[in-house]
Amino acid sequence: MTRERLYLFDTTLRDGAQTSGIDFSVTEKIAIAELLDRLGVDYVEGGYPGANPTDTEFFREKRTKRATFTAFGMTKRAGRSVANDPGVQMLLDAAADAICFVAKAWDYHVRVALGCSNEENLDAIRDSVEAAVAAGREAMVDCEHFFDGYKANPDYALACARTAHEAGARWVVLCDTNGGTLPGEVEAIVRAVTAVVPGANLGIHAHDDTGQAVANSLAAVNAGARQIQGTLNGIGERCGNANLITLIPTLMLKTPYRDRLELGIDAARLTEITAISHAFDEMLNRAPNRHAPYVGESAFATKAGIHASAILKEPQTYEHVPPEVVGNKRKVLVSDQAGKSNLLGELARLGVEVDKADPRLDRLLAEVKEREAAGYAYEAADASFELLARKALGKVPRFFDVKSFRVMVERRHNALGQLVSVSEAVVKVDVDGETRMNVSEGNGPVNALDGALRKDLGKYQSAIEGLELVDYKVRILDGGTGAVTRVLIESHDKTTHRRWFTIGVSSNIVDASFQALVDSITYALLKADVA
Amino acid sequence: MTRERLYLFDTTLRDGAQTSGIDFSVTEKIAIAELLDRLGVDYVEGGYPGANPTDTEFFREKRTKRATFTAFGMTKRAGRSVANDPGVQMLLDAAADAICFVAKAWDYHVRVALGCSNEENLDAIRDSVEAAVAAGREAMVDCEHFFDGYKANPDYALACARTAHEAGARWVVLCDTNGGTLPGEVEAIVRAVTAVVPGANLGIHAHDDTGQAVANSLAAVNAGARQIQGTLNGIGERCGNANLITLIPTLMLKTPYRDRLELGIDAARLTEITAISHAFDEMLNRAPNRHAPYVGESAFATKAGIHASAILKEPQTYEHVPPEVVGNKRKVLVSDQAGKSNLLGELARLGVEVDKADPRLDRLLAEVKEREAAGYAYEAADASFELLARKALGKVPRFFDVKSFRVMVERRHNALGQLVSVSEAVVKVDVDGETRMNVSEGNGPVNALDGALRKDLGKYQSAIEGLELVDYKVRILDGGTGAVTRVLIESHDKTTHRRWFTIGVSSNIVDASFQALVDSITYALLKADVA
Repeated sequence: MTRERLYLFDTTLRDGAQTSGIDFSVTEKIAIAELLDRLGVDYVEGGYPGANPTDTEFFREKRTKRATFTAFGMTKRAGRSVANDPGVQMLLDAAADAICFVAKAWDYHVRVALGCSNEENLDAIRDSVEAAVAAGREAMVDCEHFFDGYKANPDYALACARTAHEAGARWVVLCDTNGGTLPGEVEAIVRAVTAVVPGANLGIHAHDDTGQAVANSLAAVNAGARQIQGTLNGIGERCGNANLITLIPTLMLKTPYRDRLELGIDAARLTEITAISHAFDEMLNRAPNRHAPYVGESAFATKAGIHASAILKEPQTYEHVPPEVVGNKRKVLVSDQAGKSNLLGELARLGVEVDKADPRLDRLLAEVKEREAAGYAYEAADASFELLARKALGKVPRFFDVKSFRVMVERRHNALGQLVSVSEAVVKVDVDGETRMNVSEGNGPVNALDGALRKDLGKYQSAIEGLELVDYKVRILDGGTGAVTRVLIESHDKTTHRRWFTIGVSSNIVDASFQALVDSITYALLKADVA
Repeated sequence: MTRERLYLFDTTLRDGAQTSGIDFSVTEKIAIAELLDRLGVDYVEGGYPGANPTDTEFFREKRTKRATFTAFGMTKRAGRSVANDPGVQMLLDAAADAICFVAKAWDYHVRVALGCSNEENLDAIRDSVEAAVAAGREAMVDCEHFFDGYKANPDYALACARTAHEAGARWVVLCDTNGGTLPGEVEAIVRAVTAVVPGANLGIHAHDDTGQAVANSLAAVNAGARQIQGTLNGIGERCGNANLITLIPTLMLKTPYRDRLELGIDAARLTEITAISHAFDEMLNRAPNRHAPYVGESAFATKAGIHASAILKEPQTYEHVPPEVVGNKRKVLVSDQAGKSNLLGELARLGVEVDKADPRLDRLLAEVKEREAAGYAYEAADASFELLARKALGKVPRFFDVKSFRVMVERRHNALGQLVSVSEAVVKVDVDGETRMNVSEGNGPVNALDGALRKDLGKYQSAIEGLELVDYKVRILDGGTGAVTRVLIESHDKTTHRRWFTIGVSSNIVDASFQALVDSITYALLKADVA
C-alpha cells in the first residue's frame, strides 16, 4: 500500500506566541526556527509581518533551511483592492515561501467583527489568495471559527472553504478557534467538507479547551485531512494548541497511521524528539513536563515493584512503544516497593556500572528503603539518588567537608526607622586540607547559606560557576509535632544546560536545605569530573 | 428523552498515588476523600488495604460520606481458596462499601506474570467476585491490559469480562493499562464487548500516554460504557490517568453528552470544580496548570485584540462554555464591578458585614489585587483574607506588636563530637503597653520563631493555649533571581476544633513565615473575642 503524505504545519512562532507569559524576541524566533528544522516539520509559520516590529524584522529574510517559511496575516479588507491594502502588501513583501491568510468562516463574525457582507468576505478570500499565487507564493487559508460557523450556517462555511480552494489555495485549514468542538463532530464535519475540497487540500487547527486537541487533529486525519497545525509542547492561547510533540510519534508509530501515512520525518529524526522538546522548554526557561506523552521524564516510568522484574524481562508488554525510538529512557522508580531489579534498572539508566551479585547492592537497597521510610523521595531527586548509590559503591570523592555553619535572620528597625530583615550565613569548610571560612548575606537563610557554601571552594570554584538554584520546594511530612521537613532543590548549570534534583530531609528546614545544597554542589563537581 | 446515568469512579488515592513524586499520608488521603465527596464522584477508590501500612490504616474506617468507598486488590491466587488467601481476606476485612479486583485479561500476562492457566485465572475472578458479593460488598473487576489482551486474544479477554459479569460484578472495567490504545480502537473494542456484557455494566480506565485519556474515555462512553475511572487533575503513573476535572464539564455541558447522560453532580456543584482542582494542587504543593481545560487561569483568557467590542457584546461566540458555570473567570473581561461583586460575595461568606456603597471596599479591592500580583493567594488562605478585609474596614484590634526578632541556626560538633543543629529565636513584643522578650529553641528556625512568638502574650496567653501549627507549605514563585517565597500555614485549635489557613509572602522565607504566624495568632485572638 502506498502511504499518503501528511504535512505538519508548526505555528509555535505565531499562535504559540499568543500564550500568556510567552514573548519571543527575534533571536529566540531564529533559534526556535532552527529547532523546528531539526524536528522536520513541513511548514514553519513565523508570525504576522506588519503586525509588530519583531515579526516584521523576523521576515526580512528566510529563516528556515528545510521547512516552507510561512507568513500569517489577514485577507484584504472589504472595500479596497489588494493593491491598496497595506496589510496584504506587507505579506507579499515578506521573505516568505508561503502566505497563510486568516479568514472568517462564521457568518456571525463576518457581520459583527468585520462589518461587511458575506459576499465581500468571499471576495476578500478569493482576491487575497489569487494575489499571493500571482506573486509566486504558496497560499493557504485558515478558516477561523470553521466548526462553530459550520454548525450555525453550513452553506456559508463551505462557501468560504470552496472559494479559497478554487482561488488556488494549496491548503484550506479548518480552525476550531474556540477549541470546544469534540472529536466526533470534527470527524463528521471534516468528512462533509471533503465533498467540496479534497482531503489532500484540507488542514486542521485544533485547540485544547476540552483536553482533546490531539484527538481532534487525529479525527480530522481520519476524515481525510492531510495537514495538521500545532505547536511545540502544545503551547498556545488559553489551553494551548495541538501538541506536535505528542502527535508526531503517534502518527509514526501507531496503527493505523504508520501504515497509511508518511511524514517528512524519518526514524532517525524521531529519536531526537525528546531532546527537541526539552530544548524548547530550556528556551522558555521552564522545567519540562515530567508527565508529557512520549517525551516526559516519567512517560516510561513505572513505580510498581511487582511489575519491575517483568518489565525488565519483556518491556514491550508494559510499554505502548519502546522509549528509545523517541529518544526517551525506561525508568523504573526506586520507591518503598522497590526490589533489586528496580534498583539495577535505575543504576543502568544512570550509567552506574555494577555487578548483579555485588553484595554492596543489598546494603544500598536497605539504605534506600530506610531513607525513604524517613521521608526521602529519591524518585523526585535523581542526583541525590545517584550520589547515594555511588557512595555505597565507593565511587564519590570527598570534594569538600563542611565542618560547621551558622545562619542568622534578624528583623529590626534600621536607622531610618524602617523594619528590615537581614540574613547572614557563615560556613566553615575544608577543601583539599585547607580550612576556609566564608560568609554571605542573602534573601533569607537558605539563600545566604547557598551563597556562603558556594563562595569559595578553592580549586573547585571554576567548576560551579554556572550553577544556579532554579527551584526550591518544601514539604512537611506527617504534620504535627513529629513532623519532618523535606526539601527538594532543582539546580541548573548555565554552561552545560544540565538540570538536576537533590533532596534533604530533617526536622530542621535549614538542615534539610543544607543537605540538598551540598548534594547539588557535589553532583555538579562529580559531573564536571574535577576530582 | 430520559438520560442514562453515567458513574464517575475516582482513583486519585490508588492509581493516582502511583504518580512519581506523589506520596500520600493517611491524613492527606482523608482530606482528599473529603474533596472528592465535595466534587460529587460516585466512587472513591481509597487504595489497596494490605499492600502497605498507609492503605491498611486508611481502610480501618469508612472515609467517605457520599461516595461508595472502594478497596482495590488482587483476585485470589491460583491454587488456593478465597478463604485461604490472605490478600482477599484483607479486602473483605476492610471498611469498604465496594471491592475492585484487578485481574489479568491478556493471556500472555496470565502465563508470564501470574504463572497459572487461563482457566485458573477465570476461576480466580469468579471466586473473588462471588466472595465479595457474599460478604455484602458491591464487586467490580478491573480487567488489566484489556485492550492489548483483546487484540492478542479476543476470546480470552471477553471470557474474563463475561466471567466477572456472570459472577455478579456490578462493573467490568476495561483498562488500557499501557495507555497506548487510540480512540477509534477503544470505541470499536468496547462496542464488541457490549455483546457480552451490557454497556450499563462497563467501565473505562484510560491513561494519557498518547495525550488521549479524555478522548478514550469519551470513545468508550460513545460505545456504551457507563462508568469512567479517572483522577483529580489527571495525576497518575507515567503520563497520568483520565482527568476527571476535564471530563466532568465536558460530560455536563457539551452535546451530545449533556442531553443523553446524567451524572451525580448538579450545576451548583459544577461551579466548585475550579476551586476543587486548585485546592488539590495546593495539597500537592504545586502550582495549578494555568492552561488546564476549564479550570486553568488562562482557560478563558480570550485575546480581545481588534474584536474587543464583539467579545464584550457576545462573549459566548468566543467561548466554548461560559466560565462561570465551572467557577472560573473570563480573564481579560473582569470588570471592577465584577471584581467588587466577587469581593462582596466573599465577605458575606465570611460573615463580614459591609455596605455595598462603602468606599473602603474599593480600597480593599485594590489592595487585594496588588497583593495577589505580588504573590499572595487569598483563595488558599481564608483567615489572612478575613484579617486583611477586617483591617481595611477598620475592625481588627492591635492585640500585640512585634518590635523585632532574631533567629539563629547553628550546626556544629557538640562536646561528644556529634554534629548537632540548634535553632533559637528571640522575639521582642509589645502587649498592652508592656514590652516582653521571649526566647525559644525549636526544630528549625520557623518552629523556634513560632515558639517564641507564642510563649508569653500576657493577658491573651490563655486564648491561644489550644493553638497548634498543623501544616506548613512553602513555594517559590517565579523561580530565578526575582523569586519570592510564599508560605501557607494551617493552624488548628485543639479547644474549638477550628482550622484556618494564613499566608505570608516575602523574598525571605523567615519573613514570609513570620507574616503567616502573626496572622494565625491574630486570627485565633479575633475568634476568641478577647479584645
